[in-house]
Amino acid sequence: MVSNLKEGNVEFERKVPDVYGDAHPKGLLKAIHEDGEHLKQLSSQHIISSDQFDRDVLLQLFRLAAKFEANPQRFRTPLQGKILISAFYEPSTRTRLSFESAWHRLGGDIMSITDRSTTGIAKGESLSDVGEMFNNYGDCVVLRDTNESSVKEMMRSLRIPIINAGNGLDEHPTQALADLYTIFKWKPEMLGEPGSGFSPIRLGIIGVPNKMRTVRSLLKMVAIFPECFEEVTIIHDDSDRIWDKGQLEQLQQAGLKIATTTDMESVLPKIDVVYINAIAWKGDGFESYGTRFVLDRNSPLKKDAIVMHPLARGDELSSDLDETSHNWYFSQARGAVFLRMALLTCMCERIERVMDVWM
Amino acid sequence: MVSNLKEGNVEFERKVPDVYGDAHPKGLLKAIHEDGEHLKQLSSQHIISSDQFDRDVLLQLFRLAAKFEANPQRFRTPLQGKILISAFYEPSTRTRLSFESAWHRLGGDIMSITDRSTTGIAKGESLSDVGEMFNNYGDCVVLRDTNESSVKEMMRSLRIPIINAGNGLDEHPTQALADLYTIFKWKPEMLGEPGSGFSPIRLGIIGVPNKMRTVRSLLKMVAIFPECFEEVTIIHDDSDRIWDKGQLEQLQQAGLKIATTTDMESVLPKIDVVYINAIAWKGDGFESYGTRFVLDRNSPLKKDAIVMHPLARGDELSSDLDETSHNWYFSQARGAVFLRMALLTCMCERIERVMDVWM
Amino acid sequence: MVSNLKEGNVEFERKVPDVYGDAHPKGLLKAIHEDGEHLKQLSSQHIISSDQFDRDVLLQLFRLAAKFEANPQRFRTPLQGKILISAFYEPSTRTRLSFESAWHRLGGDIMSITDRSTTGIAKGESLSDVGEMFNNYGDCVVLRDTNESSVKEMMRSLRIPIINAGNGLDEHPTQALADLYTIFKWKPEMLGEPGSGFSPIRLGIIGVPNKMRTVRSLLKMVAIFPECFEEVTIIHDDSDRIWDKGQLEQLQQAGLKIATTTDMESVLPKIDVVYINAIAWKGDGFESYGTRFVLDRNSPLKKDAIVMHPLARGDELSSDLDETSHNWYFSQARGAVFLRMALLTCMCERIERVMDVWM
Repeated sequence: MVSNLKEGNVEFERKVPDVYGDAHPKGLLKAIHEDGEHLKQLSSQHIISSDQFDRDVLLQLFRLAAKFEANPQRFRTPLQGKILISAFYEPSTRTRLSFESAWHRLGGDIMSITDRSTTGIAKGESLSDVGEMFNNYGDCVVLRDTNESSVKEMMRSLRIPIINAGNGLDEHPTQALADLYTIFKWKPEMLGEPGSGFSPIRLGIIGVPNKMRTVRSLLKMVAIFPECFEEVTIIHDDSDRIWDKGQLEQLQQAGLKIATTTDMESVLPKIDVVYINAIAWKGDGFESYGTRFVLDRNSPLKKDAIVMHPLARGDELSSDLDETSHNWYFSQARGAVFLRMALLTCMCERIERVMDVWM
Repeated sequence: MVSNLKEGNVEFERKVPDVYGDAHPKGLLKAIHEDGEHLKQLSSQHIISSDQFDRDVLLQLFRLAAKFEANPQRFRTPLQGKILISAFYEPSTRTRLSFESAWHRLGGDIMSITDRSTTGIAKGESLSDVGEMFNNYGDCVVLRDTNESSVKEMMRSLRIPIINAGNGLDEHPTQALADLYTIFKWKPEMLGEPGSGFSPIRLGIIGVPNKMRTVRSLLKMVAIFPECFEEVTIIHDDSDRIWDKGQLEQLQQAGLKIATTTDMESVLPKIDVVYINAIAWKGDGFESYGTRFVLDRNSPLKKDAIVMHPLARGDELSSDLDETSHNWYFSQARGAVFLRMALLTCMCERIERVMDVWM
Repeated sequence: MVSNLKEGNVEFERKVPDVYGDAHPKGLLKAIHEDGEHLKQLSSQHIISSDQFDRDVLLQLFRLAAKFEANPQRFRTPLQGKILISAFYEPSTRTRLSFESAWHRLGGDIMSITDRSTTGIAKGESLSDVGEMFNNYGDCVVLRDTNESSVKEMMRSLRIPIINAGNGLDEHPTQALADLYTIFKWKPEMLGEPGSGFSPIRLGIIGVPNKMRTVRSLLKMVAIFPECFEEVTIIHDDSDRIWDKGQLEQLQQAGLKIATTTDMESVLPKIDVVYINAIAWKGDGFESYGTRFVLDRNSPLKKDAIVMHPLARGDELSSDLDETSHNWYFSQARGAVFLRMALLTCMCERIERVMDVWM
């Protein structure tokens, strides 16, 4: 067929959306045996912190996410008739749309709050009262707020599940779930039988564990699989204190080996997974950290290393890496939708609709 | 099953959502004989004021709301294929989400406007022209605006129904519908056969009838059932004029007995239903009234009295009443969703889909 | 049935929504032979500019829009399971709701961005990265931004189609599609067999071609049918330069005869279609042009002339024309929904669901 549209440069290709990530959900599906039983408990839990998860729940969540990702057309209606309250009191495109896309793909309806100033909270309503109302309006709440305590305040009155989608400097557990899902999608053999000859990997995190909620939540999640990580290296600016009281100890007690450095160039050549992040939310704005750390084509990355980035990217991650095989940050953002689909399906008591075998 | 999630305090109970209100929809269902005929006229009416309603329409609306509340899973799709334009030019969480939840529960789609500054009205477009556009975009409009005349201006050009969800100091008729629904849900015997031995109740309203749209609309609605109310007592600050011209006379002519007082403590022990509200919207902000009136566990409430509150609560209503049987304000907010479901179903010409018998 | 609602003035009529436009979709349906083949190419194209279209594609789009308009209830689900990302970084009610209504009428789901300040772009995220995310979240993007280059920047990374819904001073192609659809709905005989005795019409545009995106896009679209227009007269203020470099030449080379004047009164009596617009978007605000040109009942309009207006109307178009047969601006706004339904169905690869015959 001859194209009649005259501007050639407006054509686009609906090619496979995600080159590196696409093949891997199948690997994860094979590596993990389906056992929906572990997911049942998610139906009576709020999701506030990475601390809540254990190995079995995580593996089954990742497996379900992989199942969604491997065949996005398969499940269309598990959340039909369910209403999500998407409450983003702090600015966000990425996380809000990721959750809302996940919910819509499962067939549910959505009510959004995108601006605190348009709400009754502006009139002084307590978050506990807002939660009381939400019980009547929807089936699940996703909350982001700059105030660390908001999610816990609202939780008190809720009889429907709430997900913490970022509470100030504290946590962002579903981002950590998506991050770990990406790592296991990249190397499903890490989850295989013991003695299958797999060597643990080295994870490098450019960021500040006590100031970035994504880093805080990811570290807790990684600590559930200490055998998979030979060492975790924190790459940071030299000035500030980078750990909250007890934070490092909790990770070490879980069996994680942790090193810290301010010299990115010298450690990069040994890192398998590089996780970079330069922004921390604080109050109504954000602060940048580690602005002297930049990843680009000249960075001494291991040949097989992958790069991950949990947020909107700034100058710290050059787009000249986008077309290289180091780029797993796009796959990471894509996988987050499927991971959230898995979590939401469990929390809204609809897992039986997506399991191959149910009891 | 053993819970693997480690933080015990994130568990929640999906218990019956509303302890006191839940049993009562059945009482209302029994007290009112279904007669859908009266609801037909709602399909060609905008809903602007409590003045529009009569006894028969109200009873059938309450019955339909009770039917929805008694079995929320029964009707899923009466508004399938219908589009709601949810236009909130004045800040709101509660009313907006209540309407949107009602619409979604009926299977419809929604387009929301939550901020006047994002609209063409910012460019000087007239509300009559906006209404002309809305005819093309949706099947029903819910409008809230600080400007009293907006709803009437928009109405002029509409060929789809509009609901006044609060127009400045004037009216908020669907809130009044929800309020009266709550009262009759609490005492359905008030609607039973004459001579069944029921004594009328005493209603106390802490608020200012000419400055609060919720109070104005509720009083008009109550005046349709004068036989149910022995007396209505307005409890207010002593300073201001509390009635608009003709407002009190209209209520008295309808047969309502009205008293006013500034001494809450001495009248409370005689009140069956206490309705409290301390905020009035004015221009772009709000004013507080009656800040010296506070309800808490020490208030001299009748043992069986119920407390209602139509809005986001402030200091005037202590949360130490939440766990007492006086708390009907949560049930009131919950019932509002089902009341709105009933109204919207009628206005969008879909009652035949929810009647047990249709002609 | 006796009306029980007491306020008589709240009744409304669900009459035929659009007096003049309603009969005409049938004329267009007859004038154009259905040939879906031409629409296939739209599934791999972004829609950025009127330059992209040719005669065959336009005719088939108009036919499909007419088919939707002739029977709005017929197609309910062509976009079921598809998600629209409605990204309006510049204020809009009309265009946003028009697109969203079109999408909902086709059975799809929507995620809206109505305020740039609530997004990650506020944190400095590039539009190319935002596009990368959108690939994961939805099936189609509609973008409005004051920045002319935004749509092209986002396009670079998209693997789902994007529609330019207004990019600064540049273009607004779907408005132009709706405008031309209106003109052909009014006179379908212009598209009939050659020699059928039809005389070309005179189009008058009150506006500034190089400052108004609607005018720029419409002129390009009109230039695809030069045989239908005897002359196009630009009516403008005398002060400014009204053409960008090459703009007039492009139109003339396409065969369009173009005149310009500053004297509206003397040319109006010869004009068949008067298109009026007084606003141009610039940066974060707008400027008014041609404020001395006003159309009202005293304007020397041809008896059969129709008036069109692409935007929220201001003082330039008197509402005393609303009840006259000159008013085609309401029909124009209404038709825009159906035109967008046609375009979206094609771009999302669902035309086979709405064609009567498919290959």
